[in-house]
Amino acid sequence: MDISEDALLGAIRKVLSGPGPEVRVGVGDDAAVVAPGTGDLVLTTDALVEGTHFTLPTTTARDLGYKAIVVNLSDVAAMAASPRYALCALTLSPSVDAAWVMELFGGMREACDEYALWLVGGNLARGSEVTVGVTAVGEVAPGRASTRSGAHPGDVLVVTGDLGAAAAGVRLAAHPPRAPSAEERAASRRLARPVARVGEAGVLAAHAASAMIDVSDGLALDLSRLCEASGVGARLEVGAVPVAAAATVAEALGGGEDYEILATLPDAAAATAAADDLREAFGVELTTIGTITGSGLVALTPDGDESPLQPTGWDHFRDA
Amino acid sequence: MDISEDALLGAIRKVLSGPGPEVRVGVGDDAAVVAPGTGDLVLTTDALVEGTHFTLPTTTARDLGYKAIVVNLSDVAAMAASPRYALCALTLSPSVDAAWVMELFGGMREACDEYALWLVGGNLARGSEVTVGVTAVGEVAPGRASTRSGAHPGDVLVVTGDLGAAAAGVRLAAHPPRAPSAEERAASRRLARPVARVGEAGVLAAHAASAMIDVSDGLALDLSRLCEASGVGARLEVGAVPVAAAATVAEALGGGEDYEILATLPDAAAATAAADDLREAFGVELTTIGTITGSGLVALTPDGDESPLQPTGWDHFRDA
Repeated sequence: MDISEDALLGAIRKVLSGPGPEVRVGVGDDAAVVAPGTGDLVLTTDALVEGTHFTLPTTTARDLGYKAIVVNLSDVAAMAASPRYALCALTLSPSVDAAWVMELFGGMREACDEYALWLVGGNLARGSEVTVGVTAVGEVAPGRASTRSGAHPGDVLVVTGDLGAAAAGVRLAAHPPRAPSAEERAASRRLARPVARVGEAGVLAAHAASAMIDVSDGLALDLSRLCEASGVGARLEVGAVPVAAAATVAEALGGGEDYEILATLPDAAAATAAADDLREAFGVELTTIGTITGSGLVALTPDGDESPLQPTGWDHFRDA
Repeated sequence: MDISEDALLGAIRKVLSGPGPEVRVGVGDDAAVVAPGTGDLVLTTDALVEGTHFTLPTTTARDLGYKAIVVNLSDVAAMAASPRYALCALTLSPSVDAAWVMELFGGMREACDEYALWLVGGNLARGSEVTVGVTAVGEVAPGRASTRSGAHPGDVLVVTGDLGAAAAGVRLAAHPPRAPSAEERAASRRLARPVARVGEAGVLAAHAASAMIDVSDGLALDLSRLCEASGVGARLEVGAVPVAAAATVAEALGGGEDYEILATLPDAAAATAAADDLREAFGVELTTIGTITGSGLVALTPDGDESPLQPTGWDHFRDA
């Protein structure tokens, strides 16, 4: 690194959140100090690791910083909470220089500004690969956090937006088309700059969502997790799954990093009302893709066949 | 990895904190949910990176997990806060197996039990080197956090315990003695199992400490940081610095990972009273090692010479 740790921290401090109404002590002390509200706190951490989640030649530092924040906010959103504070834990390798790090923090700052998040502290370490770890803290009214475990048989299964774009983006990065279509460019953009459905999740919670999870590891796998946590089953109408323009059905079912919200609502009327609200407030579609059952995961294909739904998706340790 | 991510998470969940009075949703959902008290929150994150902070052949997984928690609690302590919640962000390489990971979590659990900390969530990722990242959340009465920036000229400079043991432990690991003495074994143990001065820092705060910092990167460097944050100088009596039994003076001044608390107190009477309390409550010495001045960092040697104190110590990026 072409700069000392303290000099780098000084430079970083300038692009980060200073003290403010909620932040008593920001970046630069042993720890940050914040004055929280009266709600419950939602705590989550997620890391982007070089070689696993990104490579330096194919990712800009700015996109990487932005995404590291958003993937955490997607987990905050899935609890129906509002983003409050974040910390970043950065491992830097000799492959990156101070300018790269400043760009990374610029991307984090961009996401923080968009989502009204205070980046209040962090840590720098040296390693042989770059890791961008973020911890996000959200707030939710006491006892009102939405979990994975509240789904009941008879609930309808809904998902925000569309699925498979990020998986299509990965495919397109591996085999770049000579002249990418607008849809293909959008898929690549979606992979680089995901959206955390913070406001959307709040609307779903207001419509009495019984369970929520963010689709980070693939619809089939995340649905299986929701069902396992709730002790229920599900019947997924494959033909109803909203597939992103550049994606395949397989990418929509098994691809990771969509960061849409998968939720269960008490009935079709709630799903219709929530869909109207989401469309009006955010221009985002909400699609009913199945129902919750007593047990078992079943995929109903458009031609009427039923088969067990394989909970495949992103597993960090499979085949390792 | 010889186990799937979900299976590993399931096994880990069993050794971690379940829901309790303060924890509404523990490990296993998109995020943890806690019901905090009415104090300010202290937020900090720190990571141990393979090759930089440890190597797999020379560290047990249990010690590593324990230390990853404690180094974060040392930062919580330095703010005069009490530990509350923690999250861990783990990057695993193919060099470690599920049994190793379970031992790592066993060590974390040990530290959590000792310090009354709830490990409420985390993240697993795959990489080419092992990283153990922890985020700790502490609580302190509103407006009562101790910072680095409150030192005034005339304050006395005190430090808990003794310094240099961890640096001696690093030296002994590099050049193992044939028959290590009891002091040498203690130094190695101190490196592997540091102590976070949580209770001690609370006593110092009660004696009106004007500034505190934990000595994680070496006394000289951390003192320079405290002085810079406070806009003051210091005069360090080198002969008064408490040197750990197996360590050299240079290791006590420049070695990292001691995790003692360096604090400033308003006068000698407060230092004496605090020392009495620390000895009685914790069996820990508090030593006066200098005074705060208007500006400049000066080292006063035992033979009466004065020279500028070089703020050298652990810098992750120097010479990189």
